[in-house]
Amino acid sequence: MALADELKYNDQGLIPAVIQDYETGQVLMVAWMNRDTVRMTLDGQRPVFWSRSRQKVWIKGETSGHIQRTKAIYVDCDKDTLLIKVEQTGAACHEGYRTCFYRQVVGSGAEDARLEVVEERIAQPH
Amino acid sequence: MALADELKYNDQGLIPAVIQDYETGQVLMVAWMNRDTVRMTLDGQRPVFWSRSRQKVWIKGETSGHIQRTKAIYVDCDKDTLLIKVEQTGAACHEGYRTCFYRQVVGSGAEDARLEVVEERIAQPH
Repeated sequence: MALADELKYNDQGLIPAVIQDYETGQVLMVAWMNRDTVRMTLDGQRPVFWSRSRQKVWIKGETSGHIQRTKAIYVDCDKDTLLIKVEQTGAACHEGYRTCFYRQVVGSGAEDARLEVVEERIAQPH
Repeated sequence: MALADELKYNDQGLIPAVIQDYETGQVLMVAWMNRDTVRMTLDGQRPVFWSRSRQKVWIKGETSGHIQRTKAIYVDCDKDTLLIKVEQTGAACHEGYRTCFYRQVVGSGAEDARLEVVEERIAQPH
């Protein structure tokens, strides 16, 4: 059985992929793939995602130039999550930050918790 | 509005949390939280998850002793994914590996792709 068929997809037919900078270890983003884009990812040089909001195939950097090159792909114990180490050019986040996780929770406890931006913007939002 | 109420949950009321070793940057696991366990996570010292298979609250290490201590929590641009840096004791994976992502994809292309264990087992599976 092909690997893409062995993976466990949710009831929308999707599996999450954690995208990590292969050099720094920084977690850049989490995006989703369906079976077809998993196959495209395995066949190609870049991760290929399925956009849940636009219901279409997308590749990071197609419009922004902030491309990702696949370095290594890992599968978790339950085969329901992927980890992909990439070489990231520029900003992974459409908000212009290196990582989508540019806000940290500060404050004490659930009632006081709030978000603080902890990254520098390195590109224009797109 | 409390932070736990600002987050975007999927149609099962869940949000994924990427768990990362705060010292090495290794991605250890991805687990899910509902609004209640997000609140418990923000209020406590350890990440608290919702088990989709067992439909109950769970805390890593309750049975294995391989506990996690929360060091920092980040929220992504869409507010639909969490990143939690933790101090991990022992194995994050119930299979006895430090990380759930202990298998790497090897081979060339989607038809040839297969999994190879690339981590050492450091504990008994549980």
